Amino acid sequence: MKAHLMTHAEQAQLAMMLEVTAFPKPGNVDRCHDYENTRLEHFLASAILARPAFEHAEQGMGGIGERIREAVYLTNTHSGGNTHFGAFILLIPLIMGENIPGALRVTGETTVEDAIAFYQAFQETEVRILPGDEIDVNSPDALDTLRGRDMTLRDVMSHSATNDMVAREWINGFSLTRKGADLLISHGPGRDAIVFAFLSLLASEPDTFIGKKWGTGVAVRTMMHAREVLEGTREITAFDDECIASGVNPGSIADIIIASIYIALGEGWQWDC
Amino acid sequence: MKAHLMTHAEQAQLAMMLEVTAFPKPGNVDRCHDYENTRLEHFLASAILARPAFEHAEQGMGGIGERIREAVYLTNTHSGGNTHFGAFILLIPLIMGENIPGALRVTGETTVEDAIAFYQAFQETEVRILPGDEIDVNSPDALDTLRGRDMTLRDVMSHSATNDMVAREWINGFSLTRKGADLLISHGPGRDAIVFAFLSLLASEPDTFIGKKWGTGVAVRTMMHAREVLEGTREITAFDDECIASGVNPGSIADIIIASIYIALGEGWQWDC
Repeated sequence: MKAHLMTHAEQAQLAMMLEVTAFPKPGNVDRCHDYENTRLEHFLASAILARPAFEHAEQGMGGIGERIREAVYLTNTHSGGNTHFGAFILLIPLIMGENIPGALRVTGETTVEDAIAFYQAFQETEVRILPGDEIDVNSPDALDTLRGRDMTLRDVMSHSATNDMVAREWINGFSLTRKGADLLISHGPGRDAIVFAFLSLLASEPDTFIGKKWGTGVAVRTMMHAREVLEGTREITAFDDECIASGVNPGSIADIIIASIYIALGEGWQWDC
Repeated sequence: MKAHLMTHAEQAQLAMMLEVTAFPKPGNVDRCHDYENTRLEHFLASAILARPAFEHAEQGMGGIGERIREAVYLTNTHSGGNTHFGAFILLIPLIMGENIPGALRVTGETTVEDAIAFYQAFQETEVRILPGDEIDVNSPDALDTLRGRDMTLRDVMSHSATNDMVAREWINGFSLTRKGADLLISHGPGRDAIVFAFLSLLASEPDTFIGKKWGTGVAVRTMMHAREVLEGTREITAFDDECIASGVNPGSIADIIIASIYIALGEGWQWDC
């Protein structure tokens, strides 16, 4: 792939496509596994349908919250439910800011309007990842609360950062996104790098999506199992089967890996070897 | 999927994505099989990267030849080689004309300039499907020959129709495209319909891509084997493995099925059930 020919929007779409097709990716939808109501095709349809939101972000149109809301609306049209909410939270500022320092700048400039648009997007999804416990997203008063407290979207992420690793990326300088990109680049070209980066991040921190769904114990155990796979004492396919069978899907790590692929593609990492 | 929300361009992209992910699709790249140099990700990258050509076709910008050339250029940037040349030959007029009668109208209006743009696109690919035997696409005189004979793109397709089933669609009223769409709709929603339509078309006519690559005998034998699968006397997975192992890939039927999915989506067929 001649990376210089791609727009940032296309790079983001390719990142979404490459993440979901990589395999085996323990617990998640991949080339070899579907969940009953969310299948490979749903993720790929979202990668196709999100494009206008990414293009508008690339053109600098509107705010981050508005663009996340647009991406969620565009991809909420199929029955697979929300597939990429967390990925959009990372990709939109990365596209707008062009790189990680730029993304930190644009996230630092978010407003209450961004927070409101973000909550409106959130209300469209069935995801339980955000925003912390303080403001009930399903409450009709949620938007008034945001206005009353003058909370920007970065404030929302800051509140959520303790128990959500995607939100935490906004606060800690996209550190796992950066780490994932470095893992991809160090591993070399091709799809095996994605599995390696995914497993490595999974082995480094408990996935907060698993934590919210199944409790911290399960998230920590999954992390330990990923370590054993990297150490060669656990079979990756057995680990994958076990996670799939019990519905333990590391959704937050997957979102972060998409952002990592996006960054790595921009730095010349070759998916296509 | 709320079909009314999709643009024609998105519908074409989804058709490309749905075709390649459907499985088992004997002999072709699918969710379960790659070829060494052309993998699932290459097909999906093409589905993502083709979008501007489809959008321009939807806006009525330029001619069919120019839009096919644009689609080939956009998707020729990865190492998977040409993945969808035949599909573009069908999708571009279907998008421009809005439906099959409209596509026949716009293909009837093609010019020598369309033929020249098409040959330029063809020279970018390594595909051996077009254009018949009369004009050597690799000859530097090819474009002069087209001009000298005042050949339109429809004339080129007409010359190729005897030994190329994709070109034949332009001449016979997109009859296999229509048949495939009817098969999808009659089978009902979901990805199994794609496998059914693919097998049914494969059982109905020898694939001309196979014919050019391996000879008519192999194309006919593959057709007979597809019939046996439909009749229940041959296992689809064994047939698939056999085709994959011997490099017998029904590429022209795959291109036509993409066009069929595009038409069926426009007529309300649900991929997403």
